[in-house]
Amino acid sequence: MATPRIRTEIQVMFFDTDCAGVVHNIAYLRFIEVARTLLGQQIGMGLDDMSRTKEYPVVVRTEIDYQRPATLGDTLIVDGWLDSFSQAKFWCAFELRRRGDDTLLVKSRQSLALVRMPEGRPVRLPAVWRDEYSELATVGR
Amino acid sequence: MATPRIRTEIQVMFFDTDCAGVVHNIAYLRFIEVARTLLGQQIGMGLDDMSRTKEYPVVVRTEIDYQRPATLGDTLIVDGWLDSFSQAKFWCAFELRRRGDDTLLVKSRQSLALVRMPEGRPVRLPAVWRDEYSELATVGR
Amino acid sequence: MATPRIRTEIQVMFFDTDCAGVVHNIAYLRFIEVARTLLGQQIGMGLDDMSRTKEYPVVVRTEIDYQRPATLGDTLIVDGWLDSFSQAKFWCAFELRRRGDDTLLVKSRQSLALVRMPEGRPVRLPAVWRDEYSELATVGR
Amino acid sequence: MATPRIRTEIQVMFFDTDCAGVVHNIAYLRFIEVARTLLGQQIGMGLDDMSRTKEYPVVVRTEIDYQRPATLGDTLIVDGWLDSFSQAKFWCAFELRRRGDDTLLVKSRQSLALVRMPEGRPVRLPAVWRDEYSELATVGR
Repeated sequence: MATPRIRTEIQVMFFDTDCAGVVHNIAYLRFIEVARTLLGQQIGMGLDDMSRTKEYPVVVRTEIDYQRPATLGDTLIVDGWLDSFSQAKFWCAFELRRRGDDTLLVKSRQSLALVRMPEGRPVRLPAVWRDEYSELATVGR
Repeated sequence: MATPRIRTEIQVMFFDTDCAGVVHNIAYLRFIEVARTLLGQQIGMGLDDMSRTKEYPVVVRTEIDYQRPATLGDTLIVDGWLDSFSQAKFWCAFELRRRGDDTLLVKSRQSLALVRMPEGRPVRLPAVWRDEYSELATVGR
Repeated sequence: MATPRIRTEIQVMFFDTDCAGVVHNIAYLRFIEVARTLLGQQIGMGLDDMSRTKEYPVVVRTEIDYQRPATLGDTLIVDGWLDSFSQAKFWCAFELRRRGDDTLLVKSRQSLALVRMPEGRPVRLPAVWRDEYSELATVGR
Repeated sequence: MATPRIRTEIQVMFFDTDCAGVVHNIAYLRFIEVARTLLGQQIGMGLDDMSRTKEYPVVVRTEIDYQRPATLGDTLIVDGWLDSFSQAKFWCAFELRRRGDDTLLVKSRQSLALVRMPEGRPVRLPAVWRDEYSELATVGR
């Protein structure tokens, strides 16, 4: 099966920028969460799935590289995909580009674990992923 | 008894500003929530009280007037006080000034209701308020 | 001419909610800014207009009433319109409803002034508004 | 000279949490920026220095590991220090613990470059750092 992958667009708002005239570094994490939420819908972790199963993907690590600044009025194209997974964790990757000149602005990877709430107990990833996304499976935790 | 009243200081951060070079209008709501949390501790609605009683003050209306802009590096002096209350709601008021020249930057009033979670059921304000803060009591809801 | 009016949809994200299980009161101000930005494009105050004219609409007052809570997974329908204007200020109004049951969740009004940056000098609203939106004109400031 | 190092405390607010009942992953980036701003004051990059020199430290990479969740009412102790630097970039490191039980909640590293605004031109780090913080100097960019 094809790698789960999404693309979405986000328009930069005033509240995303700071007084250096560019998008603030923290704002990109919201853009990435929007993309990750869309991606979650593709892999059985949509917001409605979560409230039904009480199993929530929890960010355990974020890596983000800021390469070029976005500014007010830019529309960002956000690509997100499932990058790899083990028994207990998965990695998503994201690239944010400026619509128009297609400049790569930001790259990010996030590792997530599935947790059952409210106990906060880690849960194994769906066994079916080993079949569906076999090319993304890694060994170990 | 004296009117419940707090004062706190907040240093403007990069993430509080926008690309017009001033503090963004939404950021002041965070400053006000910090002040309201401190005020809550004085009136028996501290964060620890809440998790014990499961009764949470919920903002039902905010009014906020932006009079002068704050900028990066400013330290803001936030005054907050209990302004009035009825059986079911209370009003807090806030004034934010720039430390140094004492310019009044922002005025705000917030009306809150006490709600028991997770049912979301409205709860009467503490009867003792009528004695302790009698000068702030209003009739009606 | 018809009253400038927009409608947009916003999906509630994890970062919009708080530990009371509902959308945090501050998050709605972001939703409203998204709607206001769209509305601005209709009335000659789009993000691209601003960077060209250096005239920015600045929020001078916000009133917001929280009537019902939104929760994770809700999609909100945001209606915004130009409500009235004088020589120097204009009011926008907003209503946020839950898609599906159409419950009115939040109502808000914001007053804005047009300001030339970086001087921060107030600017008169476009004279053409008196013709185009004559039914929304009020006297005074 | 001693490694530049700061410690600050931050009280978790409602707006820092999400509907999973814990501090949202993005909120920690604000806590870290508060700490980094304090650290900046120690190394000649305070908010007042910046507005004078027009040289701003810009985050070029963030790594953040979420190890344990913080919840409403927690007070966080944030330690931050200058970790290393080259000619053009420096790394800060941060650890966030819960006050009381001292649990390590979050670890983060951020790489920053010094940039002159509004041109956005990279600037060399102060030559004096090689003397003052010689044990933190690395070769290369």
